[in-house]
Amino acid sequence: MPTELQLIERIRARIPQARRSGITLGIGDDCAIFRPRGSPDDLLFTTDLLVEDVHFRRETHKPEDVGWKALARGLSDIAAMGGEPRFCLVSLALAEWNDARWLDRFYDGLLELAEREKTVLAGGDLGRSAKTTCDIVVCGAAPRGRALRRDGARAGDAIYVSGELGASALGLRAGKGKASRRHLRPEPRLALGRFLRTRATAAMDLSDGLSLDLHRLAKASNLCAEIAAPPVFRGASLDDALHGGEDYELLFTAPARRAIPERFEQLRLTPIGTMRRDRAGEVRMDGVVLAPGGYDHFRR
Amino acid sequence: MPTELQLIERIRARIPQARRSGITLGIGDDCAIFRPRGSPDDLLFTTDLLVEDVHFRRETHKPEDVGWKALARGLSDIAAMGGEPRFCLVSLALAEWNDARWLDRFYDGLLELAEREKTVLAGGDLGRSAKTTCDIVVCGAAPRGRALRRDGARAGDAIYVSGELGASALGLRAGKGKASRRHLRPEPRLALGRFLRTRATAAMDLSDGLSLDLHRLAKASNLCAEIAAPPVFRGASLDDALHGGEDYELLFTAPARRAIPERFEQLRLTPIGTMRRDRAGEVRMDGVVLAPGGYDHFRR
Repeated sequence: MPTELQLIERIRARIPQARRSGITLGIGDDCAIFRPRGSPDDLLFTTDLLVEDVHFRRETHKPEDVGWKALARGLSDIAAMGGEPRFCLVSLALAEWNDARWLDRFYDGLLELAEREKTVLAGGDLGRSAKTTCDIVVCGAAPRGRALRRDGARAGDAIYVSGELGASALGLRAGKGKASRRHLRPEPRLALGRFLRTRATAAMDLSDGLSLDLHRLAKASNLCAEIAAPPVFRGASLDDALHGGEDYELLFTAPARRAIPERFEQLRLTPIGTMRRDRAGEVRMDGVVLAPGGYDHFRR
Repeated sequence: MPTELQLIERIRARIPQARRSGITLGIGDDCAIFRPRGSPDDLLFTTDLLVEDVHFRRETHKPEDVGWKALARGLSDIAAMGGEPRFCLVSLALAEWNDARWLDRFYDGLLELAEREKTVLAGGDLGRSAKTTCDIVVCGAAPRGRALRRDGARAGDAIYVSGELGASALGLRAGKGKASRRHLRPEPRLALGRFLRTRATAAMDLSDGLSLDLHRLAKASNLCAEIAAPPVFRGASLDDALHGGEDYELLFTAPARRAIPERFEQLRLTPIGTMRRDRAGEVRMDGVVLAPGGYDHFRR
């Protein structure tokens, strides 16, 4: 089986140009962009799978946490493009072990986050499967032409990350404490995303690990990235911070002379490097090439 | 476990009013409706799961047919509301047995229909699961306020179905012939849906069987339905036509005196009964109550 990136590229290569369909950005970013006729807004769409025994386990993840995370993953993609969430659609294929109580508690977690972030649950589908499988679609809005993309970085731009990385990987191992809560209840950085809309040149969320996600951003922008070690969550390893997935912090670039504050609403914003003209997609840390080591569903 | 309808009602009861989110119709119809600021169009959204060993089998369904059907199900929902498709998002959780060739052929079938119906594949997600699971979202557009809904039928309206029913149930049993093709490659009635936009008072697609779907339409419109036997596909049984799912024909209502042609582009349009003021949701055929016998994922 090819890698996940190769599979996505393979599908993308087959799509004819969008032609007057309203799609202004298709496969390959955090969200697709649709431009409704006559509207001052662009609409952003993202879809995310959450599968039992891949993204969560029956024994260790409470249904409320599964529901929260299902939505948080989608909201994080909206945040990465600077959007405001509007609504979501939830498809759930339930396994034999999911009873009505599990379903109620799943929606407890999902709706808690949905209400806080003003995201209306507008529809979905219910079905059966061997393993619990949730697919969530989130729609967000951004002023026309202003959504942040992965492909906007320019040579010389500074590279930033929000927060401290590796918390989710640590939390998954530890199973308790602050890091565990970060793993179970990730916080989509929606306010930061909107703040960056007029400041960043490119952005994406850190869902699969910095090494893989920065590779993607660099490749989309046709540049390479030179970084130093990112800020590491207390107790996590550098490896967790570089390759652990599901931190849902934002990775972004901005012109070197643009003032980016050290904190945005308590959240650290740390410059970790610079975009360079060189091999597109390559990431170097302290001068050494960093292989994309994040999560790939199709790597053995 | 409660029934599928009870589960959906349970989720719907928990959603706070949409308030300024742009959602003008939420859970409970074929599509949700979103009204973009300043646009002359409403946008329609539907999401549909397609799961191995529930909706298709590895042994009997070619990957091209699975891809076609995944999209056809969503397009049929857009047709039911009188929309024009704009784009789709496809999430695929692949099982161990799905190789890259299977994926290519899945997209062969999906893109064949997508290109014919001018539906751009705008994004999606890839993952792993124990059984192949596809979730598709289709977005369509209809002039503002003009989308057909389930809840618009009025007492005295005539009830119609397109085509002949039971083909898909017959085709599933037979495994060959014209009925089998109808099962494997359903045809979303998009042109008919748009034609009905100015003529029908309510509409939905027949995905789960006439008895269950008409019950849903009647319940949404707060009326009961009195029908005679619907047109039956050659070789199918009346039971197939009443309770067999996946015909993807349209079920609609129109004022009794409105002229509805006998055919629309070769497709028969047959009056099968009348909407009445009486127990909401009840369906009577030739005077006898017809229990909703269509497909319910949660019935044992």
